[in-house]
Amino acid sequence: MSRIVMKFGGTSVADLDRIRNVARRVKREVDAGNEVAVVVSAMSGVTNQLVGYVDSLSKLHDPREYDAVVATGENVTSGLLAIALQELGVKARSWQGWQIPLRTDDAFGKARIEGVDGNLLIERMQAGEVSVVAGFQGIGPDNRIATLGRGGSDTSAVALAAAVKADRCDIYTDVDGVYTTDPRIVPRARKLPRIAYEEMLELASVGAKVLQTRSVELAMKERVRVQVLSSFAEADGGDLPGSLVVDEDEIVEKEIVAGIAYSRDEAKVTIRRVPDRPGIAASIFGPLSDAGVNVDMIVQNTSADGTTDMTFTLSRTDLPRAQVVMEENKEKLGYTEILTDSNVAKISVVGVGMRSHAGVAATMFKTLAAKGINIEVISTSEIKVSVLIGAEYTELAVRALHTAYGLDAA
Amino acid sequence: MSRIVMKFGGTSVADLDRIRNVARRVKREVDAGNEVAVVVSAMSGVTNQLVGYVDSLSKLHDPREYDAVVATGENVTSGLLAIALQELGVKARSWQGWQIPLRTDDAFGKARIEGVDGNLLIERMQAGEVSVVAGFQGIGPDNRIATLGRGGSDTSAVALAAAVKADRCDIYTDVDGVYTTDPRIVPRARKLPRIAYEEMLELASVGAKVLQTRSVELAMKERVRVQVLSSFAEADGGDLPGSLVVDEDEIVEKEIVAGIAYSRDEAKVTIRRVPDRPGIAASIFGPLSDAGVNVDMIVQNTSADGTTDMTFTLSRTDLPRAQVVMEENKEKLGYTEILTDSNVAKISVVGVGMRSHAGVAATMFKTLAAKGINIEVISTSEIKVSVLIGAEYTELAVRALHTAYGLDAA
Repeated sequence: MSRIVMKFGGTSVADLDRIRNVARRVKREVDAGNEVAVVVSAMSGVTNQLVGYVDSLSKLHDPREYDAVVATGENVTSGLLAIALQELGVKARSWQGWQIPLRTDDAFGKARIEGVDGNLLIERMQAGEVSVVAGFQGIGPDNRIATLGRGGSDTSAVALAAAVKADRCDIYTDVDGVYTTDPRIVPRARKLPRIAYEEMLELASVGAKVLQTRSVELAMKERVRVQVLSSFAEADGGDLPGSLVVDEDEIVEKEIVAGIAYSRDEAKVTIRRVPDRPGIAASIFGPLSDAGVNVDMIVQNTSADGTTDMTFTLSRTDLPRAQVVMEENKEKLGYTEILTDSNVAKISVVGVGMRSHAGVAATMFKTLAAKGINIEVISTSEIKVSVLIGAEYTELAVRALHTAYGLDAA
Repeated sequence: MSRIVMKFGGTSVADLDRIRNVARRVKREVDAGNEVAVVVSAMSGVTNQLVGYVDSLSKLHDPREYDAVVATGENVTSGLLAIALQELGVKARSWQGWQIPLRTDDAFGKARIEGVDGNLLIERMQAGEVSVVAGFQGIGPDNRIATLGRGGSDTSAVALAAAVKADRCDIYTDVDGVYTTDPRIVPRARKLPRIAYEEMLELASVGAKVLQTRSVELAMKERVRVQVLSSFAEADGGDLPGSLVVDEDEIVEKEIVAGIAYSRDEAKVTIRRVPDRPGIAASIFGPLSDAGVNVDMIVQNTSADGTTDMTFTLSRTDLPRAQVVMEENKEKLGYTEILTDSNVAKISVVGVGMRSHAGVAATMFKTLAAKGINIEVISTSEIKVSVLIGAEYTELAVRALHTAYGLDAA
């Protein structure tokens, strides 16, 4: 017997037939003797409709009221799934965030979870009742409903799994697991049976958007074993095995490289001939940070004749804002010109195994060189090597690296 | 300065433009220096959609889950109206039933209000903030959301008005007041500036469906002054005066008859030649009551040869169920046959003034006789005389009585 938290996203509960299908899957886990709690998102489209109402009434809306409106979508789904379960003879009861309670801070609209009381769910599980919890929401200070930001239901599920000390948190989604890279680019990409939290974080944040990043961070912190699996595909009478996101100690046969990620949502900025003096980096990146621009990779060339070139990358949507900030500070910074390039992509090689293996970066550079791909920026971390290249080389680079690291399926 | 609870139904908040319009009306009361709380229904169509979902999943659904799903419609509207008010510069905050709290019993799906804590609303009103409360809902025992049954938002509004000791509860609806009779039948029907609770109850329950009956009962019990007015029609820059439902002591110039009501949703059952023995009425109406059939008028003929004819009326939709019950008990009751007639209507003359005036019933009978209308059943109460007639005479009877009691507009 295991204790499991199952989470179903918006497309998995998009209509009544799919809700019935979800009920059938939950029943299967119950019939297998497991203790089960379920977390659901709003039926797909509903949240967008509610957000549309709020935006139409007021551009600068009160986030407390936004939350009160938008959280209702999940309440509907949780009640409907409880009814569908009861109809199958499964004892079930729906719960909203305030009833659990799942407590949050007061950052309404994008609140962070401060604590989850697992007692209600544990008591119900032990009595053989499935709790169906509305995801994406909690209760903030002063008794107001707070939402966790888009995609927050993943985080709800992991937080509840931690609170009830679940053996596993199963996230049902519209992909059937985490792949070594995007199968649309590399048809021979393989599904990873296990992947470490840190790898998942790097893969998620650089393009493989399977789980919300915060949910993986929380799972890592609370050591919740998360399984990503398909809510549509099924193997005879059971779930198709997905990918398990776990502590790296649980991965016996570690690959040196777990996967190749890419992101086309990148832009590069080069500031030419900045006077090379102490504190110059701070005076460039301070104002950017104040303006809410997240800078990713940073490269500073060696100084020549007392000036240097500073290159950094950022999300493409932030580029116009960054340009404004740089123009405003031109005099103070004393640079000669700014060059920008939106026609770039970031390719990352990710794997916890590279901590103990040399040569991963070298293989990457050699492979790209062999294909004639020029590397514009390099950045490395303990478990990742990223390079910035021309966007038109994205597929070529991903395929070549996938083969070079031995990731292609047999 | 007055303290006012304003209530807007589903058609008044049917879309974002109407919600903006409601916000404008609320602002007008605030600008006039009043303390205001607002109660809203779900946007029209929303509750039906949610009920449809529940019914599709399960015919015999768990009422606790039905309530969790269906109550969300009002939550959306309350948040949206709060945002619309803020956009007009009015301080506003939405509240759900459990946040007030408005406590109910455990009759989920059609719960009754057990108590309302007025402190939160009073505190906010005194701080110049408009509270926008989701109607139709409260919090039952064991912390579950409970709904008050269809039309329950009127009752929410009156209960909140009582709890905050409001000077008035304004119910905005799609009619502009309570009329002496249905203006579609009698174009010269007059809007009643004031009407007594008891009269309103009789008029509401016999066809003039302006307010939910329970809300009027509650208003009478708690002595809440209720105003019915149009959410669409406006007089230059202000509300068109509606009808005030008040204690009869507040009505200085009492009319003997306040209005003429009618109902076509009637059926008549006659049980022929029942043995006339003590307890026979109980043995007929007991089983009907057990089957959930509400009997309205009852007439028992004088006994002849040891048997009697028993005639009663009921809602037309209950007729098939009543026939089944009567057939099942035929042997026990010992009657010879059952006659039924769905082609009947009930016409009622209502007025608190008739307590102190004789001759109201006589005028009714004389008026109907002069038009050649046969009376099939008669029933009277302190403030009402009702007759059952052939359905085809409905309009003729209502018009003739309206004139006979001097109700026609000049």
